[in-house]
Amino acid sequence: MTRTDREGTTVEQSQRPGWLQHNAYGKSRVRLSKVTRLKDRHDLKEICINIQLEGEFDSAYTRGDNSQVVATDSMKNTVYALAADHPLTDIESFGKSLANHFLGTYKQVTECSVDLYEELWQRIAVNGKPHPYAFFGAGDEKHKAAVRATRQAVVVESAVEGLKLVKTTDSEFWGFIRDQYTTLPEVKDRIFGTSVSARWLYRKENPDFQACYEAVRKVILKVFATHRSLGVQHTMHEIGQAALADCNELSEIRITMPNEHRIPFNLQPFGLENRNEIFVTTDEPYGLISATIKRNAG
Amino acid sequence: MTRTDREGTTVEQSQRPGWLQHNAYGKSRVRLSKVTRLKDRHDLKEICINIQLEGEFDSAYTRGDNSQVVATDSMKNTVYALAADHPLTDIESFGKSLANHFLGTYKQVTECSVDLYEELWQRIAVNGKPHPYAFFGAGDEKHKAAVRATRQAVVVESAVEGLKLVKTTDSEFWGFIRDQYTTLPEVKDRIFGTSVSARWLYRKENPDFQACYEAVRKVILKVFATHRSLGVQHTMHEIGQAALADCNELSEIRITMPNEHRIPFNLQPFGLENRNEIFVTTDEPYGLISATIKRNAG
Amino acid sequence: MTRTDREGTTVEQSQRPGWLQHNAYGKSRVRLSKVTRLKDRHDLKEICINIQLEGEFDSAYTRGDNSQVVATDSMKNTVYALAADHPLTDIESFGKSLANHFLGTYKQVTECSVDLYEELWQRIAVNGKPHPYAFFGAGDEKHKAAVRATRQAVVVESAVEGLKLVKTTDSEFWGFIRDQYTTLPEVKDRIFGTSVSARWLYRKENPDFQACYEAVRKVILKVFATHRSLGVQHTMHEIGQAALADCNELSEIRITMPNEHRIPFNLQPFGLENRNEIFVTTDEPYGLISATIKRNAG
Amino acid sequence: MTRTDREGTTVEQSQRPGWLQHNAYGKSRVRLSKVTRLKDRHDLKEICINIQLEGEFDSAYTRGDNSQVVATDSMKNTVYALAADHPLTDIESFGKSLANHFLGTYKQVTECSVDLYEELWQRIAVNGKPHPYAFFGAGDEKHKAAVRATRQAVVVESAVEGLKLVKTTDSEFWGFIRDQYTTLPEVKDRIFGTSVSARWLYRKENPDFQACYEAVRKVILKVFATHRSLGVQHTMHEIGQAALADCNELSEIRITMPNEHRIPFNLQPFGLENRNEIFVTTDEPYGLISATIKRNAG
Repeated sequence: MTRTDREGTTVEQSQRPGWLQHNAYGKSRVRLSKVTRLKDRHDLKEICINIQLEGEFDSAYTRGDNSQVVATDSMKNTVYALAADHPLTDIESFGKSLANHFLGTYKQVTECSVDLYEELWQRIAVNGKPHPYAFFGAGDEKHKAAVRATRQAVVVESAVEGLKLVKTTDSEFWGFIRDQYTTLPEVKDRIFGTSVSARWLYRKENPDFQACYEAVRKVILKVFATHRSLGVQHTMHEIGQAALADCNELSEIRITMPNEHRIPFNLQPFGLENRNEIFVTTDEPYGLISATIKRNAG
Repeated sequence: MTRTDREGTTVEQSQRPGWLQHNAYGKSRVRLSKVTRLKDRHDLKEICINIQLEGEFDSAYTRGDNSQVVATDSMKNTVYALAADHPLTDIESFGKSLANHFLGTYKQVTECSVDLYEELWQRIAVNGKPHPYAFFGAGDEKHKAAVRATRQAVVVESAVEGLKLVKTTDSEFWGFIRDQYTTLPEVKDRIFGTSVSARWLYRKENPDFQACYEAVRKVILKVFATHRSLGVQHTMHEIGQAALADCNELSEIRITMPNEHRIPFNLQPFGLENRNEIFVTTDEPYGLISATIKRNAG
Repeated sequence: MTRTDREGTTVEQSQRPGWLQHNAYGKSRVRLSKVTRLKDRHDLKEICINIQLEGEFDSAYTRGDNSQVVATDSMKNTVYALAADHPLTDIESFGKSLANHFLGTYKQVTECSVDLYEELWQRIAVNGKPHPYAFFGAGDEKHKAAVRATRQAVVVESAVEGLKLVKTTDSEFWGFIRDQYTTLPEVKDRIFGTSVSARWLYRKENPDFQACYEAVRKVILKVFATHRSLGVQHTMHEIGQAALADCNELSEIRITMPNEHRIPFNLQPFGLENRNEIFVTTDEPYGLISATIKRNAG
Repeated sequence: MTRTDREGTTVEQSQRPGWLQHNAYGKSRVRLSKVTRLKDRHDLKEICINIQLEGEFDSAYTRGDNSQVVATDSMKNTVYALAADHPLTDIESFGKSLANHFLGTYKQVTECSVDLYEELWQRIAVNGKPHPYAFFGAGDEKHKAAVRATRQAVVVESAVEGLKLVKTTDSEFWGFIRDQYTTLPEVKDRIFGTSVSARWLYRKENPDFQACYEAVRKVILKVFATHRSLGVQHTMHEIGQAALADCNELSEIRITMPNEHRIPFNLQPFGLENRNEIFVTTDEPYGLISATIKRNAG
């Protein structure tokens, strides 16, 4: 096969119908396990990292000139190399280190985004004691972080994602609009199932990221369990306020909660009584509710 | 079990640490099949719809007062009811109808977002002729649309998502930065595998949505096949320019393409020659590249 | 459109090239949540059920005669109706009840298989105490059961599936065959990551299913943590023997464990020392190892 | 940390409660792309391979003695090395080559299973002509094969999996059992949606695998489209008989088809007429039906 000549595809940019308004590129799903071998135990950190760079990369798009391009393979190498010398006690500070590295090393980079999540491992208990180097997986729930850095500023967002919750009572939903499209009955005692995603920003530059994460997660569990819910919105707002109250380092928190419906199965056609005990578990459709609670000024 | 009294959980808002800066809610994954029974054939449209409303819903969050709340179950009902009277020739105009409905019916709604995607079904050919009512599924690729509407303006974005492509030559990658983190060799003949996501906006209010979708999809296939690629960025830019050239109704197009690496497997340890034929197919890590090409003014 | 006449598609069976050697049908993914409202707490059971019937259903296949067919929709109804009157303390006995029901009610059924799994929910701790009705999800791990019943016999198999484990030392792999296809180095200290699936059969008809499940799960965790592993095979065998030793009611256990490789990342090209700390987490390819350990006779 | 001595975990097998009844191990998800560079075009084959070996591997389990163990990493290497010299025109014959290799090379192997599937790529058409080296992905549907080989015999099974189909009429379901658990109405005109899995065996050792695959796939499409269905069972049987009739090399075919329900949405509460046009697309629960059609003797 012959190829078309390279010049054949290059066209004067001024003749093109459009211009390159925005671009970004990077490496996704760089997966890293780091073992820190201490005297009395091993620590394990398993992280998945996505990197995106923005900057003066136009010529790679418009002319196939890669002279300003950091290969995404090199980004991957950088993640492992930097992890070797980083304590990795929290994903947020590792994300900041990565962003600083790319901004500091390559002048054509004007913005660097690093998204990370951590697989949650817990120590196996053997005879009631946490084992020094054996762990079990804590499910799909993730601790996430997103770092957006320019040479002027760094914004860190942390998150709990996929925290699955259900309560079997203390949840109501009534008083909503009834019109021609309404068939849902009002209910004073329903099952409330959800999977919480909560993301928050910080008031200062170097908070104790890990402590904040643990505090927010604890607040979510407690408020979900103890709040008398008049709707997903109602509980979500209470969680957000409680998170700001308990975690002084947060400036705002954004919470998203699906309403994962358990629908009462009607037993009457089978000669049985409906006692609010038997439900159809459903995945779709689902309600999806979100709110941002921002700390009051002053 | 006794419950805590409702008043127990209600607190004066002025005493809370934060305020409700933003909220939104709606129904996700409302799945609809519509059969249009014509004289000589049936048409089938299978759509999945997500709706989100924004507006004056604060009291549901802060007080559990649902009097302004349209139940998400009612949103679901509305989708099916409106679909009964809508021709559903394209998902974009159905999304607009839904958004108009919610804005027009409920004065507390200030913004309505409708995200839709269409499962792609193709007619089975029997004896070389398209069958009037039997279809096979065209895979994971989706036709998507996103409608964002307020009382002042409507923005429609259309998309091709998950269009899987691979070419086995005419793809190079060299001339990129070589520094201490670079181990990737330069390559003049590599496999280029990707899965295109392209989203575009329109110059006018009522374009021929379905024709634009088909034209963009065709451009992507053609440019991917025939463009001599010096990088994912290079090909992506060419696709974007060609889409603006071929589809006059587009105002801008944003393209995202992963670089789904096929890595040459080194056969030398096994006494075999490397002839650029045998590759390891990988899912992760992957490069991720995006660009927005905007039509020139005038 | 006109249709072909029904008779048009019916053909004398003796003229067909083949015969119906086997058939089965049923309902899959019937999802049920049951709340048992006790004085001091609620219990929650969330189960997914698959049912398959075998028997004299040939005419439905060969002639479209459904007179012997129990609609799969009726099977779904039956699950919810029977669950209303069943204590649901363990999924195995509920599976047996369902199988007995179908065999007892429909004489054309000769065999009934019921596969079930349970989503694992744990009580949220509030102020150190388990909450009476609020739960969090324990991840992807499942408790499964498979009941195969005829009018003569019932076999119950129970399982732990998706128990994710990793240990950061005490795992070796060496002494394996080295030939022309071998490039893997021997290693005296590697990471051992896996996701255990263990299925077991019982020696008698009515064991304490829930106690056995908990005992097997505990054995897996303990042996994985404490066994010095010379290979996945080695650890798996030890788990199986220990399960038979600790759980007297088991007759055999089949264990399957992937080897979810963490591959040391070579830091030398970047001027760094390899200290067995930095690994690439991978999903594929993966080793897959299984064994059945059967209790000795006598 | 000190380790327990290796001898500490080795126990006399005669003292263990059980014995190793069965074992197997291998490598899963070895993913391979092969480009065959012909004069006028490139052919692309993208395959995922799972290998399992059975044989005399007991000592690896019982004693951690790996001297008979072929490392799964070496199996992976073998796949790529053998692919370099294999034409790869069909996955079945490559699976046979792999099985023969392991049985022929390692005397401790008594049985080798190779499961393969092929990603389906189609040539992009440019100006109406198939492009020589650019392809688009044909979705989730897979061509699969399973080879089970001992030194005495080889059995090859081929399969179509995930062929998604829907027809909007010519499907009925009535005349089934009505009893206390039945709420499903009889229906003379329903949507029939499914995803066909068909697996077949061969009458002779070296059939034209690729031709059989294409013939079976074609039969499925044709019969699904043209058969007047009185139930999933009815259509499935017809497909199986037609496959045996059209493909003389098949000895039997096993078909599995879910009934992916589209449920009529009741529009009457909204003052609209039900015209059998608007359906709720559902994933679960679903019917699951299977049958094996075996060729008549003689």
